[in-house]
Amino acid sequence: MKRIFTNAVIIPMTEDMEMIQQGALGIEGDRIIYLGDLPDVEELDTYDEVINCEGKAILPGLINTHCHAAMTLLRGYADDLPLQRWLEEEMWPMEGRFTKVQVGAGTALSVVEMIRSGTTCFLDMYDHMDTVGEIVSQSGIRASLCRGVIGFGDDEIRKNKFQEATQFATEWNGAANGRITTMLAPHAPYTCSPEFISKFVEKAAELELPIHTHMSETAKEVEQNVQQYGLRPVEHLRRLGFFDIPSLVAHSVHVNDEEIDILAAHHVKIAHNPGSNLKLGSGIAPISSMLTRGIRPGLATDGAASNNNLDMLQEIQLAALIHKGFLQDPEAVPAPIALKMGTIYGAESLFLDHQIGSLEVSKKADFVTIDLTSAHMQPLHDVVSHIVYSAQSSDVQDMYVDGNPIMVDRQILTLDEEKIIAESQIAFQAIAQ
Amino acid sequence: MKRIFTNAVIIPMTEDMEMIQQGALGIEGDRIIYLGDLPDVEELDTYDEVINCEGKAILPGLINTHCHAAMTLLRGYADDLPLQRWLEEEMWPMEGRFTKVQVGAGTALSVVEMIRSGTTCFLDMYDHMDTVGEIVSQSGIRASLCRGVIGFGDDEIRKNKFQEATQFATEWNGAANGRITTMLAPHAPYTCSPEFISKFVEKAAELELPIHTHMSETAKEVEQNVQQYGLRPVEHLRRLGFFDIPSLVAHSVHVNDEEIDILAAHHVKIAHNPGSNLKLGSGIAPISSMLTRGIRPGLATDGAASNNNLDMLQEIQLAALIHKGFLQDPEAVPAPIALKMGTIYGAESLFLDHQIGSLEVSKKADFVTIDLTSAHMQPLHDVVSHIVYSAQSSDVQDMYVDGNPIMVDRQILTLDEEKIIAESQIAFQAIAQ
Repeated sequence: MKRIFTNAVIIPMTEDMEMIQQGALGIEGDRIIYLGDLPDVEELDTYDEVINCEGKAILPGLINTHCHAAMTLLRGYADDLPLQRWLEEEMWPMEGRFTKVQVGAGTALSVVEMIRSGTTCFLDMYDHMDTVGEIVSQSGIRASLCRGVIGFGDDEIRKNKFQEATQFATEWNGAANGRITTMLAPHAPYTCSPEFISKFVEKAAELELPIHTHMSETAKEVEQNVQQYGLRPVEHLRRLGFFDIPSLVAHSVHVNDEEIDILAAHHVKIAHNPGSNLKLGSGIAPISSMLTRGIRPGLATDGAASNNNLDMLQEIQLAALIHKGFLQDPEAVPAPIALKMGTIYGAESLFLDHQIGSLEVSKKADFVTIDLTSAHMQPLHDVVSHIVYSAQSSDVQDMYVDGNPIMVDRQILTLDEEKIIAESQIAFQAIAQ
Repeated sequence: MKRIFTNAVIIPMTEDMEMIQQGALGIEGDRIIYLGDLPDVEELDTYDEVINCEGKAILPGLINTHCHAAMTLLRGYADDLPLQRWLEEEMWPMEGRFTKVQVGAGTALSVVEMIRSGTTCFLDMYDHMDTVGEIVSQSGIRASLCRGVIGFGDDEIRKNKFQEATQFATEWNGAANGRITTMLAPHAPYTCSPEFISKFVEKAAELELPIHTHMSETAKEVEQNVQQYGLRPVEHLRRLGFFDIPSLVAHSVHVNDEEIDILAAHHVKIAHNPGSNLKLGSGIAPISSMLTRGIRPGLATDGAASNNNLDMLQEIQLAALIHKGFLQDPEAVPAPIALKMGTIYGAESLFLDHQIGSLEVSKKADFVTIDLTSAHMQPLHDVVSHIVYSAQSSDVQDMYVDGNPIMVDRQILTLDEEKIIAESQIAFQAIAQ
């Protein structure tokens, strides 16, 4: 099946940010085979389908580098509380009642929301990951999945969870025509002992998988780490060899310049969660300093319970806005960089940039179209600025992943949206008290 | 004409934030005549039209307390620059080429965008205000309008502008069935001499109109004020009698606790512009301190050239998020307060809270409906949280102002949206170089 998308503003998100006005994107199977001006009629005739995208932009699908999709079931359940209280008194007790049913319902709801808002690939860290894997397979989108392991409880519990996490990562890596990749994920230095983290590092090295964790999300957590281990989390994880293998850390809000240098030197990937960090009062990550030091952070929503949505266009906008305001520097995180954080830097953060994150011939055909004709996108001259500062998720019109249509004209083709919404309400009611 | 809207979640935005589940809102002429549970059939029969709002919330229309609507024509024209450079090198030269045509095109585009995103009332500070007044009249929405006066140039120019501003304010106050009210508006202490500001204060007192200006938007501007006049802007304006009459100041980013006390003591209204303040790198206004001291700030988008949209739901969300992150306090600006800032506090800021800002019997029938059935609004339990943290402007379904339908099922009834979009592109091209 060969398809060509014509007359669009194409934003390939390559290094130079060069755009193609009235351009065309050709795909065959799961790959991009053409990118450029409109081909002549003879060439167009070789395609099975010509899709006119006038009035639309085409850009790489958005990439969400840190999520707990099932937690969308708790959207708005407990707002405006500090991280530790929110986690320990509200989230964990509710999550304790989660079965496969809640995880399935919450994850499916999340995937619908992500498709509707242009996310073609997300990292998920949770449990009941077989269920998550099945939903991702069915949805047609792409995901990097890891069983997040909290190291509380006795040795037996830990051993079982570790076993479960590694088994999932082994079995599912490369599943769904390669759309699913996996990582290992000890939850955080404050929920896993150094020994336990070391076990994950060793196993990840052995399995040649990346490793993912939460790091330096709150000031309190950094302080605790110093009290408990005499080290701040960055040095703590460095000594455990965490950064000697491909690693992705979520948050990194409370990292100083010296720590950023360490992260940069070890090519550690960062998942920046502006919305969640704001909402939980965690703080504002030093993204400008990271960019200056050569780190290219990806963007993420975190779970919808602390956001409270999974809208990556909103995270892109927040990334472009908050650092300017916080640093009183209107040149911080310019619009094109914010859009890179949501696309190509995200792909790099998930170690998938050889396949996705930009539109280039031979890369995977993962892309979205964005309507440029609404009032809030006028007058139309700087398309990147408009996508970053003015667009909203309802502007996302179509989505293709691996060359397959996932959403066309805002109709999701792969999942039963109505059923998923109804089931999410039932699954929530079953555990609400 | 009597209409009743049934089966909605009604959020009246009264002080206690009490909501009505499966409620009904009855209107007659331009007023609310009923608010409560579904009336019996006999009572329902007295209405000319019964509109089923199942799956929707009804809340007061959003109120944008500071805008330069015509500037939407420059959306995305010059991003990521500091305020003074952005104003002096980019905006002012382009605005210098604005005629009535550009003001009309930009304002009409803005009004379309505002209707689509739930704003039923906005303050506009600009020039060619007759044109703005005509568009507002035609649109059916509500506005507080003022001719913003920059005091540069010679006495003759200043005299003419002053004359124009007071004439506009006099002629248009109460126009369009009272939907238009007016203020006087010297642009800012850094663009108007103390004498010139005093003239506005006197005139406003004489005409019994509120007065509006920009104040303490950037650190640089505060510093300049100190250098030039030996006073920070708050004390400067206080001495000019600005706060002795009903006054609204936009921004107030760089105000200290002592200054907040002065503003509170004088019942000065604040227009908080979170998006614009972030984007221009101006900073983050001390909204938590203001709330603590009894100030109830309204929210605003500022002009779309520094935002880059006019989406009040987004400003509400930013207001709920950024102060939490900046102060590392997840309890700062809770969701219900953010929603009040976008509605009732906004009405207070425009001195219109006797008419609008909350849904109460005998108040004006200015309200919007919001779809609650989309994936990003599930599971549905805390509607206020969802509207603040998860909703987007495309969720706004219907709008009524003064009891008249302005938008129904996302179709704008009062303006020709397609024509306005086309004309905005032409008007922009005519001045772009």
